[in-house]
Amino acid sequence: MDISKVKGEPLTILLVEDNPGHAELVLRTFQHHRIANKIYHVSDGEEALNYLYRKNSFSDPKKSPCPHLILLDLRLPKIDGMEVLKEIKKTDELKKIPIVILTTSAAEPDTEKAYKHYANSYLVKPIDFNKFTQLMNDLGFYWLGWNHHPW
Amino acid sequence: MDISKVKGEPLTILLVEDNPGHAELVLRTFQHHRIANKIYHVSDGEEALNYLYRKNSFSDPKKSPCPHLILLDLRLPKIDGMEVLKEIKKTDELKKIPIVILTTSAAEPDTEKAYKHYANSYLVKPIDFNKFTQLMNDLGFYWLGWNHHPW
Repeated sequence: MDISKVKGEPLTILLVEDNPGHAELVLRTFQHHRIANKIYHVSDGEEALNYLYRKNSFSDPKKSPCPHLILLDLRLPKIDGMEVLKEIKKTDELKKIPIVILTTSAAEPDTEKAYKHYANSYLVKPIDFNKFTQLMNDLGFYWLGWNHHPW
Repeated sequence: MDISKVKGEPLTILLVEDNPGHAELVLRTFQHHRIANKIYHVSDGEEALNYLYRKNSFSDPKKSPCPHLILLDLRLPKIDGMEVLKEIKKTDELKKIPIVILTTSAAEPDTEKAYKHYANSYLVKPIDFNKFTQLMNDLGFYWLGWNHHPW
């Protein structure tokens, strides 16, 4: 099923991930299952905020559209993932974008803190390849297929 | 697959729904697919808050445990769903509970407002029975199976 065609509009994801292996895996799975029309990948927290605030090379809304979903790693260079989350969720124009934390950390303090700062969902990356692929599939289907967004 | 056994702990949902037909449908689907060990159903916003604050008949944490997921309708008697959402998301001990709005309204102002007040996800009830069942299945699997909670 091609989710990107269900809603009759291009569905976009902003992937914030510094680990090239993990990013590659996410991108491949999403492309293979045709989960999003377009995935924008940035590899640190500063770039993520530049993208969302349309700064520097991200100034053109056609080239850098508001994403329907943000997949956010926690351990990131320059600006930490938790800081990116806090910034987005206190900004009126951005807080409506669902943020799914996608991290290797299952630590309770990280989970607690993420929910405290209004992460929409918190997922721990499975080590097993098949499980990782299944998770990407299910999360894409849920957030881009079922979840209703206000724009 | 019995999701309730995957995490080795009883998984609970608080369903806040005043329409008896919709509530019945949710309960049946969840029981049929063994999605949660226990679903607590309340039918107005006041009862929902009484449950979460353990007031009146909900004082025993064993009988009224903190839910792993709240399914919240918007149009509710006594206290509106949006007010319930606001109250939960400004309360430190409760804001970590994922709240999925489950409503018949696809109206943009409702969706906007729900995300503004930090709803974790917003779903519009499908009219088609099979689609409704599929949605319940997918959401149960996503939130109780994949999503990581901090307790």
